[in-house]
Amino acid sequence: MRLPLNQRIAILLHEGTAGTQGKTGLSLLRYSEAPIVAVIDRECAGKSLPEITGIKRDVPIVTSVAASLEYKPQVLVIGIAPKGGAVPDDYWHEIKDALEAGMSLVNGLHTPLATMPELNALLKPGQLIWDVRKEPPNIGVASGLARTLPCRRVLTVGTDMAIGKMSTSLEMHWASRLRGWRSKFLATGQTGVMLEGDGIALDAVRVDFAAGAVEQMLMRYGKNYDIVHVEGQGSLLHPGSTATLPLIRGSQPTQLILVHRVGQTHNRNNPHVPIPPLPEVIRLYETVASAAGAFAPVRVVAIALNTAHLDELAAKEAIAQTTQQTGLPCTDAVRFDANVLLDAVMKN
Amino acid sequence: MRLPLNQRIAILLHEGTAGTQGKTGLSLLRYSEAPIVAVIDRECAGKSLPEITGIKRDVPIVTSVAASLEYKPQVLVIGIAPKGGAVPDDYWHEIKDALEAGMSLVNGLHTPLATMPELNALLKPGQLIWDVRKEPPNIGVASGLARTLPCRRVLTVGTDMAIGKMSTSLEMHWASRLRGWRSKFLATGQTGVMLEGDGIALDAVRVDFAAGAVEQMLMRYGKNYDIVHVEGQGSLLHPGSTATLPLIRGSQPTQLILVHRVGQTHNRNNPHVPIPPLPEVIRLYETVASAAGAFAPVRVVAIALNTAHLDELAAKEAIAQTTQQTGLPCTDAVRFDANVLLDAVMKN
Repeated sequence: MRLPLNQRIAILLHEGTAGTQGKTGLSLLRYSEAPIVAVIDRECAGKSLPEITGIKRDVPIVTSVAASLEYKPQVLVIGIAPKGGAVPDDYWHEIKDALEAGMSLVNGLHTPLATMPELNALLKPGQLIWDVRKEPPNIGVASGLARTLPCRRVLTVGTDMAIGKMSTSLEMHWASRLRGWRSKFLATGQTGVMLEGDGIALDAVRVDFAAGAVEQMLMRYGKNYDIVHVEGQGSLLHPGSTATLPLIRGSQPTQLILVHRVGQTHNRNNPHVPIPPLPEVIRLYETVASAAGAFAPVRVVAIALNTAHLDELAAKEAIAQTTQQTGLPCTDAVRFDANVLLDAVMKN
Repeated sequence: MRLPLNQRIAILLHEGTAGTQGKTGLSLLRYSEAPIVAVIDRECAGKSLPEITGIKRDVPIVTSVAASLEYKPQVLVIGIAPKGGAVPDDYWHEIKDALEAGMSLVNGLHTPLATMPELNALLKPGQLIWDVRKEPPNIGVASGLARTLPCRRVLTVGTDMAIGKMSTSLEMHWASRLRGWRSKFLATGQTGVMLEGDGIALDAVRVDFAAGAVEQMLMRYGKNYDIVHVEGQGSLLHPGSTATLPLIRGSQPTQLILVHRVGQTHNRNNPHVPIPPLPEVIRLYETVASAAGAFAPVRVVAIALNTAHLDELAAKEAIAQTTQQTGLPCTDAVRFDANVLLDAVMKN
């Protein structure tokens, strides 16, 4: 399944447009080619989306699903991605309003909605509920098989969650296509899956099968592409994160790109956890990827810097400083483009 | 729930008594205090369990569930733990025979059996099906909270799967009790959960909640004990393993014990994956545990060597060599006792 490109989409984003929990919705606004006709956020209703978010897309922000109906939406996408991934209490009546109004529902939260009798009872023919965060069927335990693929496998890793790993992988994918390469973006989170139409929501997979699910995806696509951009998840520096390890094991990356937000010194959700200096972080990821020699050595070949909160001059200074600190090529692929990163991948 | 200590147990172990897939059943035979009255394995029927396995427990091996009935079993435990954890085709009729004969069923495989209508239809009052490998309810994302506990938290880590991490943690736990300490064994796999009656089957937990499930267990027990022995899972050197990272993050260990089988040079299920020299493996685990400085430094303080395949003289030589190679205290806690390991924990 994929976010339909021919249907009018409303994004349910209460408290998410200006806050930190709206990652899914904001990424769709930034990257989806589908027609998004309304953002639903009582906090920001009536305000300008480009002014609040910097996203250059002219979409009205309204107070409720009911208020969005004047824009004739056909699909409601739940756009928040809160820690733990449960449906907030005040979202339920909005979901029901949307189903009653004939809309389909795309759900990236952990709570399964497609099997809920109460919601199913509201569906009419042609109306669907898509739970994106589901473990794929027929997965097994990984064996490291992806290392036998001839393609480059580029994995984004990070100093924290929610700092731009998906965006960096997407930008590298698009830049790869512009160069004429056979390039594939492998989605590993719910937003990526909505955008790309395939992939896995890795955080919904059971621990025993996590690396296997990644490996299976690599084996399905890897043979037909020159370069595969694997969307990173989590961080080895985050106390609650597990997803980075099965991504490394399952994809057997040939190159790593380290993503970091300029100036961030601590884990955002856990301020008692510091982010070590970048050269130490690089060493950590390279050590885990090679597992002390159990696997082939893998290098962090470039830094993708998130400079969204800086003006352009400050961003360029931060990029220069990061190159000096790490000895590696560096850019902000979202702000500028991904060619610096691709050049580094091709050199290594 | 716990494996009942007052009920007569039969272990379903076709192809598992002499092979490599019978880990759960063999561990129960080695460690459970429950009365085990029959092992069911058509391959080894009629032979001597102590001779095949070295386990000093006089239990008859029979060809089928039907043949086990003369020993009046009340509970059937599925004793194999194959890669991927599915029910083998030829196990189904045995499971049905057991339920029809009035036995309860303990299932450590991934396939959920308790909700299967076909099996439920066979249950009479008092008969139960316990699926051990289930995600616990009400779990969230970890925050590193276990680091605030005053107790020692000792985690076993390994150079491969199935080499003795659970056994080492159990031996350390029992030895701790003999020293008069308030000690807790925290089970993280299906066999440990059957033995201990609590804990989590970590490999059935979704990636997003894996570290959180471990943290929650630590916070439930950690305050009431001097020392907590956390059963290790998987290996950072295994291409299919994901469980080690959430164990490290969720339990925030104060000491690590590295478990290794003497002479093993490659991953058993993936012979293309070498095991690096132990000093490199130690560095890997210490690097991940401290995450380059995001968390407190944690040391591997001793090596637990699995010498089951050697005679006693060769075992002692291997232990001496390992100490020389790593500079760390070393013993085989199952063969001798765990005091060398406990002394190392207390010194660090």
